[in-house]
Amino acid sequence: MTQDRQGPLTGIRILDLTRVLSGPYTSMMLADLGAEVIKLEMPEIGDDSRHFGPFQKDESAYFMSVNRNKKSITLNLKSEKGKEIFKKLAAQVDVILENYRPGTMEKLGLDYDTICQVNPGIIYASISGFGQTGPYSRRAAYDGIVQAMGGIMGITGEKGGKPVKIGSSIGDIIAGMFCSTGILAAYIHRQNTGKGQYIDVAMLDSQVAILENAIARYTVTGKVPKPTGNTHTSIFPFETFPTASEDIMIAAGNDVLWSKLCTALDCEELITDERFSTNPERGYHHDEMFALLCERLVGKKADEWVKILDDAGVPCSLINTIDKVLENPQIQARNMIVEVEHPKAGKNLIAGLPIKMSLTPGAVYKAAPVLGEDNRSVYKEMAGIGEDELEELKKKGVI
Amino acid sequence: MTQDRQGPLTGIRILDLTRVLSGPYTSMMLADLGAEVIKLEMPEIGDDSRHFGPFQKDESAYFMSVNRNKKSITLNLKSEKGKEIFKKLAAQVDVILENYRPGTMEKLGLDYDTICQVNPGIIYASISGFGQTGPYSRRAAYDGIVQAMGGIMGITGEKGGKPVKIGSSIGDIIAGMFCSTGILAAYIHRQNTGKGQYIDVAMLDSQVAILENAIARYTVTGKVPKPTGNTHTSIFPFETFPTASEDIMIAAGNDVLWSKLCTALDCEELITDERFSTNPERGYHHDEMFALLCERLVGKKADEWVKILDDAGVPCSLINTIDKVLENPQIQARNMIVEVEHPKAGKNLIAGLPIKMSLTPGAVYKAAPVLGEDNRSVYKEMAGIGEDELEELKKKGVI
Repeated sequence: MTQDRQGPLTGIRILDLTRVLSGPYTSMMLADLGAEVIKLEMPEIGDDSRHFGPFQKDESAYFMSVNRNKKSITLNLKSEKGKEIFKKLAAQVDVILENYRPGTMEKLGLDYDTICQVNPGIIYASISGFGQTGPYSRRAAYDGIVQAMGGIMGITGEKGGKPVKIGSSIGDIIAGMFCSTGILAAYIHRQNTGKGQYIDVAMLDSQVAILENAIARYTVTGKVPKPTGNTHTSIFPFETFPTASEDIMIAAGNDVLWSKLCTALDCEELITDERFSTNPERGYHHDEMFALLCERLVGKKADEWVKILDDAGVPCSLINTIDKVLENPQIQARNMIVEVEHPKAGKNLIAGLPIKMSLTPGAVYKAAPVLGEDNRSVYKEMAGIGEDELEELKKKGVI
Repeated sequence: MTQDRQGPLTGIRILDLTRVLSGPYTSMMLADLGAEVIKLEMPEIGDDSRHFGPFQKDESAYFMSVNRNKKSITLNLKSEKGKEIFKKLAAQVDVILENYRPGTMEKLGLDYDTICQVNPGIIYASISGFGQTGPYSRRAAYDGIVQAMGGIMGITGEKGGKPVKIGSSIGDIIAGMFCSTGILAAYIHRQNTGKGQYIDVAMLDSQVAILENAIARYTVTGKVPKPTGNTHTSIFPFETFPTASEDIMIAAGNDVLWSKLCTALDCEELITDERFSTNPERGYHHDEMFALLCERLVGKKADEWVKILDDAGVPCSLINTIDKVLENPQIQARNMIVEVEHPKAGKNLIAGLPIKMSLTPGAVYKAAPVLGEDNRSVYKEMAGIGEDELEELKKKGVI
């Protein structure tokens, strides 16, 4: 953990009103790349996710994992004084980011049009469940709802089984990722023209955008895509197999890899077997192929096979549980698990940055903030509020 | 479908060597937002995914879905003349994007360091399975492999069941999304300093970055996270329920929603039942709660319940199959399914843009290119190659 903000976005300042996951994921990505993110939270309470377990010495490990590298200030946006201070801050930032339900920022009198009056060049991004427009706009959404509605659940699950929700909240995360791209695109446009704009990202839209070829498969063939288990719809073999211990994933994406696989499994006779000699043939005779490979694979344990197949150049993997992910030598070599020292909670492990840049690498340089950690410095610098006034505002519940 | 390139990235030019999904997803996002993407493909063969089914009048629906808005040129990078032409093009673009296995661009003599000699400000982004560094760097990866190795499969699946692969290739897509953010961040840095750089994004790293709280849950509690089916680890109820027809997803994320849910299900007595009156209590008595709600829910069909719960303000959804996704009124209202007219294949439906911008909205303005569609215009404009020379290069297999 370094101690200085660094990265390509140094100099960009973001006022971040977001809570829980989608918006905080966006601002985490931008903060990791060097943007100054000022997280604005409700006095006393803070981001809802500060109260999500598990806790490490009373600090939420959930909160800490997506709020590293950010500052925290408290501000009650329902108070008149709070709104006034908010506008002062808004006038001095490049980006405002919020993920309230559509209509909330208007009700607070802090919507895009209003903020444009104090900062005409502002980039103002909103993430919501269903978006700012359309018949469902004002409804509340949760990750599980958009995963179900957006189609990804309908194509995930065991073959012939029920739809299965993805085990992390990708309904939120994917929306957060699209929003970060949108904000940077708008920033580039503003560098060229001086003009800011409003960005509207919906969790539901974002789910539709990651369906890959499922829409094409349906519209071209008329067949409704179903859960396909751990297989691939058009590459064979590309699936999980049983072994003498746990299952492994093997992906032999072309005929050369098929040949290497058969050699490694000591069943060379299958290479030229006309039922399996091409990918379409292997698809057509999939069940026979699967049965024959299983016969070989149940003879050794998973980790033995992984070693043999790795040496043979056949793509394969154990199906890692999280403890194994943390021990994986490639993941460690890539610095994808980072240790952070939190002033209250102590050391904790979080995911690192997946964007590796040669000249301006980002970094995890600071643990997640405690609530209001940066009140003093931010309010002094950006709103000219000194110690006495700060005390007064605190007493009144404004900060 | 409009006919002009538009969006915040107008003026940015990208030379795109990527194949199949991860890289093409990156360049699709940037092309949707207005960047000029020149897709460079092998003569005669083209992107591997041009040969992936299903086909619509001989055109791959898979290819068409992620390559809209791009130009296509053909160039054989193994030929000396091809390398020479490549460098001419490289000198005139802002970004080079490639997703070959690490080492391939070096072998071709077209790696970052070499390209810097003709274009010192170039932003050069690589997506690979495991990244440019680390012990697995040179290995081939496929989506299924990184889903298995990166941990997402290990937390996805039915409760007590086996790990399940996500039904779309998020191993590729997530890496493509991170790469688009990285490229724009590097572009901003270049606007500020004139300096380009190299970006290295790995599919495996990207999987680790979307595990949400699973790492925190494991490191804090020591318990290895397992597939949790369609439930939430800390919100109750937040799961799928049976009805008189198919299952539905219901998410009552707080006590107010719990109360609304019980009222809508005509079981108000549960609101104040001390086993269920708070979220922690509902978690503790989950199985009893689930059984009681099921008793009510099996009394009506899924779409009847969705109407009742929608009216009551309780977040819920059918678990949509792809046909239902296409019919969803919110998804339609948000223009998330776009009809494209392809010159050969005719009309086809693809996912729209999830980043909605007020001033410079992107657009799907053009169908995916046929192979080499833009050879004439690109080579004339960027390499000064006229008709005769073009014919000559074609005969020699250079383009």
